[in-house]
Amino acid sequence: MTEFDTHPSRYHHWKLSVDGEVATLLMKVDDDHALRPGYELKLNSYDLAVDIELADAINRIRFEHPAVKVVVFTADLDRVFCSGANIYMLGASTHSFKVNFCKFTNETRLYLEDASANSGLKSLAACKGTTAGGGYELALACDEILLVDDGNSAVSFPETPLLAVLPGTGGLTRLVDKRKVRRDRADVFCTVAEGIKGKRAKDWGLVDHVVSRSKWDETVAARAKALAATVDVARGPAVELAPLAPKVTDGKIEYRHVTVELAKADRVATVTVRSGDDLTATGENWSLRAFRELDDALLRLRFNYPELGVLVVKTKGDAAAVLAHDEALAKDPSGFAREVRLFQRRVLKRLDNTARSIFAVADDKSACFAGVLLELALAADRFYMLIDADEAIAVRTSVANAGFFTTATGLSRLEARFYATPDQVKKVLARGAEGPIPSEEAEQLGIATIAADDIDFADELRIAIEERASLSPDALTGMEASLRCVGPETMETKIFGRLSAWQNWIFTRANATGEKGALTLYGRPERPAFQWTRT
Amino acid sequence: MTEFDTHPSRYHHWKLSVDGEVATLLMKVDDDHALRPGYELKLNSYDLAVDIELADAINRIRFEHPAVKVVVFTADLDRVFCSGANIYMLGASTHSFKVNFCKFTNETRLYLEDASANSGLKSLAACKGTTAGGGYELALACDEILLVDDGNSAVSFPETPLLAVLPGTGGLTRLVDKRKVRRDRADVFCTVAEGIKGKRAKDWGLVDHVVSRSKWDETVAARAKALAATVDVARGPAVELAPLAPKVTDGKIEYRHVTVELAKADRVATVTVRSGDDLTATGENWSLRAFRELDDALLRLRFNYPELGVLVVKTKGDAAAVLAHDEALAKDPSGFAREVRLFQRRVLKRLDNTARSIFAVADDKSACFAGVLLELALAADRFYMLIDADEAIAVRTSVANAGFFTTATGLSRLEARFYATPDQVKKVLARGAEGPIPSEEAEQLGIATIAADDIDFADELRIAIEERASLSPDALTGMEASLRCVGPETMETKIFGRLSAWQNWIFTRANATGEKGALTLYGRPERPAFQWTRT
Repeated sequence: MTEFDTHPSRYHHWKLSVDGEVATLLMKVDDDHALRPGYELKLNSYDLAVDIELADAINRIRFEHPAVKVVVFTADLDRVFCSGANIYMLGASTHSFKVNFCKFTNETRLYLEDASANSGLKSLAACKGTTAGGGYELALACDEILLVDDGNSAVSFPETPLLAVLPGTGGLTRLVDKRKVRRDRADVFCTVAEGIKGKRAKDWGLVDHVVSRSKWDETVAARAKALAATVDVARGPAVELAPLAPKVTDGKIEYRHVTVELAKADRVATVTVRSGDDLTATGENWSLRAFRELDDALLRLRFNYPELGVLVVKTKGDAAAVLAHDEALAKDPSGFAREVRLFQRRVLKRLDNTARSIFAVADDKSACFAGVLLELALAADRFYMLIDADEAIAVRTSVANAGFFTTATGLSRLEARFYATPDQVKKVLARGAEGPIPSEEAEQLGIATIAADDIDFADELRIAIEERASLSPDALTGMEASLRCVGPETMETKIFGRLSAWQNWIFTRANATGEKGALTLYGRPERPAFQWTRT
Repeated sequence: MTEFDTHPSRYHHWKLSVDGEVATLLMKVDDDHALRPGYELKLNSYDLAVDIELADAINRIRFEHPAVKVVVFTADLDRVFCSGANIYMLGASTHSFKVNFCKFTNETRLYLEDASANSGLKSLAACKGTTAGGGYELALACDEILLVDDGNSAVSFPETPLLAVLPGTGGLTRLVDKRKVRRDRADVFCTVAEGIKGKRAKDWGLVDHVVSRSKWDETVAARAKALAATVDVARGPAVELAPLAPKVTDGKIEYRHVTVELAKADRVATVTVRSGDDLTATGENWSLRAFRELDDALLRLRFNYPELGVLVVKTKGDAAAVLAHDEALAKDPSGFAREVRLFQRRVLKRLDNTARSIFAVADDKSACFAGVLLELALAADRFYMLIDADEAIAVRTSVANAGFFTTATGLSRLEARFYATPDQVKKVLARGAEGPIPSEEAEQLGIATIAADDIDFADELRIAIEERASLSPDALTGMEASLRCVGPETMETKIFGRLSAWQNWIFTRANATGEKGALTLYGRPERPAFQWTRT
C-alpha cells in the first residue's frame, strides 16, 4: 500500500532547507528507499516515492514557510541534476501504474506553476549537470531555468529516440506552449538523445541562462533573489500540516472528516465527506483538513485500489457549517485563507482528473452538498438526489460556487455545466442565495442529473451503479475524459487530455512495452525491433 | 489499393440528387460493394467505401452545384437512418486502419461544418429511424437534426456499453462542445445502448426537432427551406472536378502536378508538387488541381503505404507562377475562388493531420516554396534548405501566408511558428514582400530549421531522414501530434488531439480488441471478459 502523507523529517530523497526568502530543495535520491524492489535509483532518477516527497515539500513551503518567496531546485550530484523517471521502474510497472504515476507527477508540476501564479512562490531550476527527461520536465515547470555551461551538461528529452515513449509529464506541451520553443526546433530537440547544451540551449529558449561553473553559486543566489523580488503576494500566517494518519482496514479508510468504504466485490468505493464545526479554529481548520484527507483518499484510491471503478461521493453533516466555512475563508484577507482555497481548488481538480466514474448521491437528510461540497456533486459524472416528502434533502450554494473553484479549463463547475446558457449559472446562484434547493427543484434547475422519490430511488441508483461498474474501464476513462472537459482548453487540459492520452496509447504499444519494445529492452544489449506501420 | 477519386455516377452507397437550392444525399448502403470482403454492410452501416463517396459528394456540391444552399441527409430504409460504422469491419481491421478510418471520417464531418461556416452550404440530418453511433455523429456534424417521433426511433451512442470503445468520429466532443448537451446528461446518453428518443431527445438538445411520420416530409422540406434562407454566401460559377487518374506503379504515383516517389526499403515517400502555368485558365486551374492531387496523394499514403514513415516534401517549378496564382485567387471575388482557397486550406490541414514525419526540403534551384507552397514547409516538422552560392534557392511569401490558411487551432502557420513573437510574423511577411528570402536568411528569420551549404547539406539531410525513419512510429505520432498543435485548442483540435488519442488507446486495449474484448466478440454469443483495472 502506497502512503502519500509524509514530512520533511522523513524524506529520503530530498533535503528541504529554508533561509529567509529562499527555500532550497536538494535532490539526493537514495537508492535504498525506492518505492519497490527491483530497480536502482541511480543518477538522481526518480520513482513515485521521490515525487511524493516533492509534492509534500511544495505544499509545506506554501503553508508552513510563508516567508519563502522562491524555491531553488538543485542536486547533490556534481554532474547530474536529474536524469528523469527511472526507466527500469517504468519497464517493470503495470500500465495502470505508469499512467497514474505520470498523472501524479504532472499534477505536482502544475502545483509548482499554481504556486507561482497565485501564491507568491516562484521557482528556479538550478541545473548543474545533466538534466534529462522528467528532470527537464521539472525544470520546465519552474519560472526560470539555469543550466551550467561546462561543455558537457545538457538538457534533453531522450524518451522518443531511446525509449520509444514521450516525455510524459507535460514536457512537450510546456516546450511549445509555455516556453514557446519554435516547433521545428522542439522537433529536433526531442529526437536528439544527448540533448542540447550551452548557448544553443539558451538561443532556442530551452533554458533562461547558461552559467559557468565559476559563477554558478553567485548566479543562482542572484537569480533567486531577483525572482523573490518579483513577488507581491504574501502568504501566512504559518500553519503546520498535521499528520493525517488514517485508520486503514480491509474494507475502510477512516480519517477525521472523510471515510472511504471499499466494496471490492462490487468494485465501488463510497467516499463520504463530513462537515466540521471548528469555524473559529486557528491553524488547520476543517476547510483545510477535510480537503487534505480527501486528497489523500483520492491518491490511495488511484494507486492502491485500481479496480474500484465507481466512486460514490456522499456528504454528511451540517450544510450551514460548510457555508459558514466558505464565507469565512472568502472574507479572510490572510494569505493562509487564500492558500486553503487554492488547496481546495487543487483537490477538486484532482477529483476531476481521477479516472473513475464519479456518482454523487444525496439520499439522506444529513447530506450537505453545500458550497465547496456542492462542487463535489458538480465534479461528478452524475448527481442522484432522493426526493423526500419534507424537502430536507437539498443543495445549497455559497461564494464557493461563484467562480473561484475553476476547473482545469478555466471555467467554474457551474459554468461548465451550463456551457450553453451562462444565464442559468446566474439563476442557480440567485436561487441558492435564497436558501436550500430541494431535490426536485435541483433537477429542474439542472443541478441534479436524476431526482427520484422513495419508490424508485434506491433501485434506480443501485442499477445505475451496477451497470456502470460492468462497463469497460478503458472506454469509460476515454468517455469521461472527453465529457468532463467541456469548453476551452488550457496548457493544463492539453497536458492531461492530449499529451497523456497519447502517452497512454504509446505505453500500450509493442514498440514501447512489447517483448522487443524499446522501453522493455532499455539497458540490455538487444536492440528493439519496431513494427513500422504508422497510424 | 484503396482509391479515393470517385464520381456520383459511380456511387454505390449514396444517391445525390439536386433540386434547386436543395441537394439530397440518400444513404442506401449496398452490401455488394463493401471495401473489402468479410463483413456485411447491413442496416445502413458504413465502411470506408461509404465515407469516400460521402466526402466526394460534399466536395462536388461545393464546386459543381453552387446553387445548392442546403444538403439533406436521408436514408432509403424506412426504420433506420444509419446504424454507424460497421462493427464487423472494425473488428476485422488492423489498428492502423481503424485509426486512419476514424481520422478520415472525422475530416469529412469537419468539411460539412466548414461548408456551413464558410461556403453557404447548410446541412440537415433527416433521421427517420434508428440513428446510432457514427450515424448520429454524421447528424451532429449537420446544422440541424430532425428525428422522427414514432415511439421507436432513437439517437444513440452504443459504443461504450456494447463495444467498449468510444463514438470515435467527434461525437463526444460535438455533444458537449458544439451542441452543449449538459455533461451529466451526455454521460447518461453515452451509456444507454438503446439511446434516447422523442421529447427527451429534444429536451436534452440531442436533436433540434422531433416530428411525426405524418408530418415528416413536409417538415423536412420546410426546415431545408428555412436553412437555405439563412444562407448569405454565394458560390460559383460551377466548375467540374475532372478525374485525377494518377499513374500508379510500384515505386511511383504520378499526377499532372504532383509526383510521389515510394522508397519502400527506406520507408520514405518523396512528394513533389510542381507549379502550374494555367493562370488564365477558367475552370479547374492549377490552384485547385494541384491541391486535389496532393489531397489524393496524402490519402493514398495514409491507407495504402502505412509503413512509409517519413514524407519528404519538395516543390519544383516557377515561384512567380505560384505567387501569381495566390494573388489571382485572393483578388477574385467569385465564390469559386473562395472555394478553391478553402479547399487548399483543408488539404493543408490534411497534411498537418497526417501521422507521418514531414521534412520539407529545398535543395535545388527549381524549388519553389512560395506562397501557398511555402505553407507546405511551414506545416512540416522540419524544413531543410541548401545554401547555394548565388542564392537562387529561396522562399517567397504571398497573400497566402498572411492569415487565410489557418490550421485547426485557428492560428496561421506563421503565427503558430512564431507563437512567442507575433512581431516576427510581421517581419517575415514584410521581408517576403521585398522579394525572395535565400536559405541562410530564411534560417535566421526562423523559416528554415536548418540551412547548410554544399559541403554538409546532403549528408546532414540523409542522416536526419535515416534517423527519423529508424524511430518508433508510435512515439513519433504522439510527439508530432503534441508539437504541431501549439497554442489554442478548438473543437477540431479537441477531436483529433484528445478524442482520437483516447480512442487510439482504447482500440489497443484488451477490453476492446483482445480475444475476449467487446469489439472482438460483438455479434457472437460469448460475453466479453474485462480487465477491471482503471487507469
